[in-house]
Amino acid sequence: MKYPRHAGVWKMLTASVCVALLACLHAQELRGHISVILLGATGDLARKYLWQGLFQLYLDEAGKGHSFRFHGAALTTTEQGQEVIAKVLESLSCPRDTAPARCAELKDQFQQLSEYRRLKTAEDYLALSKDIEAWVQREGLREAGRVFYFSVPPFAYADIARNINSSCRPGPGAWLRVALEKPFGHDHRSAQQLATELGSFFQEDEMYRVDHYLGKQVVAQILPFRDQNREALDGLWSRHHVDRVEIIMKETVDAGGRTSFYEEYGVIRDVLQNHLTEILTLVAMELPRNVSSSEAVLQHKLQAFRALRGLQKGSAVLGQYQAYSEQVRRELQKPDGFHSLTPTFAGVLVHIDNLRWEGVPFILMSGKALDERVSYVRILFKNQACCVQSEKHWVPDQSRCLPQQIVFYIGHGELGSPAVLVSRNLFRPSLPSASWQEVAGRPGLHLFGRPLSDYYAYSPVREQDAYSILISHIFHHRKDSFITTENLLASWVFWTPLLDSLAHEVPRLYPGGAENGRLLDFEFSGNSLAFSQQPLEQLVPGPGSGPTPSDFQVLRAKYRESPLISAWPEELIAKLADDIEATAVQAVRRFGKFHLALSGGSSPIALFQQLATGHYGFPWAHTHLWLADERCVPLWDPESNFQGLQAHLLQHVRVPYYNIHPMPVHLRQRLCAEEDRGAQVYAEEISALVANSSFDLVLLGMGTDGHTASLFPQSPTGLDGEQLVVLTKSPFRPYQRMSLSLPLINRARKVAVLVMGRMKREIAVLVSRVGHEPRKWPISGVLPDSGQLVWYMDYEAFLG
Amino acid sequence: MKYPRHAGVWKMLTASVCVALLACLHAQELRGHISVILLGATGDLARKYLWQGLFQLYLDEAGKGHSFRFHGAALTTTEQGQEVIAKVLESLSCPRDTAPARCAELKDQFQQLSEYRRLKTAEDYLALSKDIEAWVQREGLREAGRVFYFSVPPFAYADIARNINSSCRPGPGAWLRVALEKPFGHDHRSAQQLATELGSFFQEDEMYRVDHYLGKQVVAQILPFRDQNREALDGLWSRHHVDRVEIIMKETVDAGGRTSFYEEYGVIRDVLQNHLTEILTLVAMELPRNVSSSEAVLQHKLQAFRALRGLQKGSAVLGQYQAYSEQVRRELQKPDGFHSLTPTFAGVLVHIDNLRWEGVPFILMSGKALDERVSYVRILFKNQACCVQSEKHWVPDQSRCLPQQIVFYIGHGELGSPAVLVSRNLFRPSLPSASWQEVAGRPGLHLFGRPLSDYYAYSPVREQDAYSILISHIFHHRKDSFITTENLLASWVFWTPLLDSLAHEVPRLYPGGAENGRLLDFEFSGNSLAFSQQPLEQLVPGPGSGPTPSDFQVLRAKYRESPLISAWPEELIAKLADDIEATAVQAVRRFGKFHLALSGGSSPIALFQQLATGHYGFPWAHTHLWLADERCVPLWDPESNFQGLQAHLLQHVRVPYYNIHPMPVHLRQRLCAEEDRGAQVYAEEISALVANSSFDLVLLGMGTDGHTASLFPQSPTGLDGEQLVVLTKSPFRPYQRMSLSLPLINRARKVAVLVMGRMKREIAVLVSRVGHEPRKWPISGVLPDSGQLVWYMDYEAFLG
Repeated sequence: MKYPRHAGVWKMLTASVCVALLACLHAQELRGHISVILLGATGDLARKYLWQGLFQLYLDEAGKGHSFRFHGAALTTTEQGQEVIAKVLESLSCPRDTAPARCAELKDQFQQLSEYRRLKTAEDYLALSKDIEAWVQREGLREAGRVFYFSVPPFAYADIARNINSSCRPGPGAWLRVALEKPFGHDHRSAQQLATELGSFFQEDEMYRVDHYLGKQVVAQILPFRDQNREALDGLWSRHHVDRVEIIMKETVDAGGRTSFYEEYGVIRDVLQNHLTEILTLVAMELPRNVSSSEAVLQHKLQAFRALRGLQKGSAVLGQYQAYSEQVRRELQKPDGFHSLTPTFAGVLVHIDNLRWEGVPFILMSGKALDERVSYVRILFKNQACCVQSEKHWVPDQSRCLPQQIVFYIGHGELGSPAVLVSRNLFRPSLPSASWQEVAGRPGLHLFGRPLSDYYAYSPVREQDAYSILISHIFHHRKDSFITTENLLASWVFWTPLLDSLAHEVPRLYPGGAENGRLLDFEFSGNSLAFSQQPLEQLVPGPGSGPTPSDFQVLRAKYRESPLISAWPEELIAKLADDIEATAVQAVRRFGKFHLALSGGSSPIALFQQLATGHYGFPWAHTHLWLADERCVPLWDPESNFQGLQAHLLQHVRVPYYNIHPMPVHLRQRLCAEEDRGAQVYAEEISALVANSSFDLVLLGMGTDGHTASLFPQSPTGLDGEQLVVLTKSPFRPYQRMSLSLPLINRARKVAVLVMGRMKREIAVLVSRVGHEPRKWPISGVLPDSGQLVWYMDYEAFLG
Repeated sequence: MKYPRHAGVWKMLTASVCVALLACLHAQELRGHISVILLGATGDLARKYLWQGLFQLYLDEAGKGHSFRFHGAALTTTEQGQEVIAKVLESLSCPRDTAPARCAELKDQFQQLSEYRRLKTAEDYLALSKDIEAWVQREGLREAGRVFYFSVPPFAYADIARNINSSCRPGPGAWLRVALEKPFGHDHRSAQQLATELGSFFQEDEMYRVDHYLGKQVVAQILPFRDQNREALDGLWSRHHVDRVEIIMKETVDAGGRTSFYEEYGVIRDVLQNHLTEILTLVAMELPRNVSSSEAVLQHKLQAFRALRGLQKGSAVLGQYQAYSEQVRRELQKPDGFHSLTPTFAGVLVHIDNLRWEGVPFILMSGKALDERVSYVRILFKNQACCVQSEKHWVPDQSRCLPQQIVFYIGHGELGSPAVLVSRNLFRPSLPSASWQEVAGRPGLHLFGRPLSDYYAYSPVREQDAYSILISHIFHHRKDSFITTENLLASWVFWTPLLDSLAHEVPRLYPGGAENGRLLDFEFSGNSLAFSQQPLEQLVPGPGSGPTPSDFQVLRAKYRESPLISAWPEELIAKLADDIEATAVQAVRRFGKFHLALSGGSSPIALFQQLATGHYGFPWAHTHLWLADERCVPLWDPESNFQGLQAHLLQHVRVPYYNIHPMPVHLRQRLCAEEDRGAQVYAEEISALVANSSFDLVLLGMGTDGHTASLFPQSPTGLDGEQLVVLTKSPFRPYQRMSLSLPLINRARKVAVLVMGRMKREIAVLVSRVGHEPRKWPISGVLPDSGQLVWYMDYEAFLG
């Protein structure tokens, strides 16, 4: 069995001198001994895919001058392990066109290079290292590197990593590569922790985090496809032309037998956070000039992550197949009454806030126990044509009025094989003809609303397993097929807030399979997503302590002798937005403009979002926006009230630049310096533009200490006197503030005070009882001279 | 024949006392004698529709207490006229369910009330007036009013109007109504002229401009439909849900026999400016609270007109059926070589710039000699659903993934009758059941991609002719069915610039009928529209005097010893935008921000538009925008350079508020007052934010007098010295300016000078020859100290 690889080299040489010469040069450079250590070698994944991948690596590479040995390792005793491995090695399969005798020969060679060994203690690792060194020396080789493939549960990572780092690193001049299998954490914090831990043992360059979807031939083709069809796609790949992007992985199997894993993860962590997100970035990222540069691809991916709009509870719908809880009870010995909240189905709406993709819905969907097994990415283009002839005359491969789409068909489904589909009425795509071939016609087969014959359809000439491809990429140091730490953490940064917000969400139950009907269909509007059908069961009111007035009803009452409007948060915000619009329309009708002073904080953000969408009649072009108060930070500081206004309102409506009046807290590059007279400047601006310095509407909040705008109980500034605008001190950072004064606020035609949330309950009760005591509770001094005061409180603040 | 109407009243009373009582009260109020004078009574339109409409009016109204007489009038001799009219009256038809004997009786009554008379001179009109008065007196009636229906060519309008006004107005207490048929002018100027002329004879309230499309039952139903289905439509009727709106009128007939009219008007003036535009406003306008208030409808229509984005040459595609020119030659005795440019087909893309419709394409299309006769308005909704089941399980009337549309099917086509169609997967519409009924099933009939059974489809219970409806509306003073002067002029304001820009456009020839194939299909992208297929013939280069370098090639050369880039305007702007983006990307990469100073004027507007679309990679979030110069006007003044920047760039990209640096020409509500130190304030801002006061890029223009920024030859301010920003004087209004100084400009890393248009030819030649003489030609002083200067000149400026 000495040098069997040389035979291979000679064979290749006879085939093509040129290719072989290149291969030789390449081989010379890399030549040496490579040890592959498969950790968890007796496990499911290893038996199903990884050993086969290693065999494929051996077949592909051993002929090129490298020497290999494969060390299967696990915690199992040597004897048991050897037995399992022997069986696995026996069942390996050769490439399709290999003659049986040749196959037996190759398998035999591979078996001779493979061994099982128990790896448990530091000593075991040291022994392995010594064995490798001894072998290398004995065979007269140079050690090129070691690959450790972690096919073990993540709790075992740290120990193994420590052992490798301390006892099993190759000597100088040889590389170390560790391949890691997901899950890589459970949320951002745990992923960060795991990453830090691994980072203390390995360098970033040594780690290969596997997302096997990146090894799927069609997924791996996305960037090359975009690159090779740049000319056609350049004009198409943007919000101007793309109607929607669907990234879908449907499974028919359920989680039975795997609930101990699944119960901890659920479909978002299992599929969306990794596979579907990776695909999302491949589709959405700006295309690097050189798509084979791992570094460029990574940087562009990270850029795409940064542009993702944050997810909220309303960005997702969740489902759970009906049998799941029973499976969990059985497999995990849970009590009879146990009901799991783990979602087995999720649909998520993702938006990308950059100029290329703004407004294009990216729909990510995956689930178990669905009606078919299929995964694909579908880019549906807008119909921007008008076909003048009656539709009966339309020619499918020419009419631009029929659907135009590009589908990366990852696998399974009705087509049954991976493929790239491009509508014939779009363009003829270019794919590398050596590895992709046109799919044969399949009369009667319809995909995505059109017959197969309406597409240019290409499949891989040779279907390859994802793991084989990834193992080869590890060997070839192609890091763009793997998840870097930055990439991983960026993904968790994106997903964690959604996962947190959904932690207690009850998923919709579905029967499974074709019986699901339309139960899981969902729809989106703006930022949010909802099931199309109302649930069959009545909504059970959630747990709550206080009194609950009938849902969706707006309560009218008095508070401090002024009108009070109270409702659930959503209705309250809707009502306030309606009232503001009505006030605005009236003001513009009477005076030609509307002067609105707004406060900062989190409650107004919901209001801004409400105003930004759906209030078509709002006279923004005639509205002047003022600030009721501001923190003494630059306007671009995330702490700035103005920044909230800009992000949640100004970005979405068209208020003319010169109607926007941020507080001048940052004059001459200084923050609220007395000598810059910012408060006076603002007061002058108000006097000049606002008739009688009387705002049409001032929107205020109320702090838990009774402060309003930036008028605080601890300091008397701005509570009375002539000054319209004042500098004040807050008990909280940033301490310096600018605020409208109480006398100015009270000159407004209308003042609305928005109070929301359980935190405000106590102060709301307290303030309801006190008189006019602005020095103790500045909010109690709000009482317009001749204008109207209205309180908007949600039930939590008002009723507790 | 005395009081035959009373018989009718009694009949009605027996039917329903309540309704009849109301009718009586109503009749009492209006009771009196009404004269209808049909001008052009022997013409085509009158014979085909108007007499029938008058008969219908008589049938509907004569029973309600009014007395009528109908005076057909024309220039024809009395004898000839009487003969024609007698024939027309004989051929009138009664409503479907009228017994033959009763029909004969009714026709006889109507004939007795109708007469023909020649109306030519003022005396004729006076005679008519006297006749009416005599009749009224003789019959013991009160004159209620007179209707004059103009069914005559527009050149005759003024004379007739003058005669009516001077000689044929009814006495005090009776009303005058004149109905006018289009065309109402040929463009904005002629429409205005005609309107002014008519306005000197009639009050606005007396005029009823007829657009017979507004009398079509389905068109008349658009607003009531929107009103009665408010609840369902409120959430759907906006850019968030509407994918596109198609307003289509296809004809199979050609213009043969009517070329003398058609040759002057063409399809845009004949169909789009009136019928399709009216429909557009009905669909797009904000829905008034009370849709039956004519005044509210008019105001909302006008508001919709104001929101229409201006049309440009690129907003339309034009066609002409092949036989047209030959028809014109024959009918109008044109020479053999004559080729008409009159379009017989047009597709136009309309955008509405308000929050409701921004971004939704409204496609208006009409043509003669097409493959089918049909007209409709189709509102196609976005697919915002994700259907989880495989599509073979989708149920057409439930699946939200199948097309969702509302179609106002005006008539003809495969359905063959007017109808309102609403996809069943959308909602069940509400229509007045007395007048609308469900359409019977028609197996096999597909409309707009779906079988008829996928729609809720309603047709009028009784089909009525548009003219009968409009004549009834004139009688009932329902002005919302007619085009007011304001409405008419608003439409011409919208269409005239497009018509002007297309005046010399060669329409694409099409064979006519089904043979048109895909020849007329068109596509849109952003603002512009183009035929999908390349023309068959080669484009012939247009006439041009100067040298013409090969098209679409960018010329590189030197100008004043600096690099010169020259090209046709479009390519030049594209190249400049690319260069600015590259500079921006580089600056942001190196320094984290990009400081760009921009000039005003018209050339940069094209640049702004270019940058606003398609430059996805532009780092707007890190770009600071400065002004190179400004006019001393408020920022919101249309003259302000900043206003141009805001309208054409800032509205479309996301530059943070605090990165925008307009020149402070309007401090303390004063314009460029020395004591406000605006120039110094700007200089300080530049010094504080721009490292070394060295802009990354300054974009300048060059005036025909050699000025640049606002540095003028007549005044030495800002040409040298220490000042960074200066106040200057322009020889043109507004005289006061603020400008970056020449020394500051020359500190920039890069200066680009954009020079475009034939007007700049002379100064470009002159400046190419002079040395450094900024006092004579300030532009000659532009030479960056250590930065780069690049000239961008279009061929017209550079080569002349």
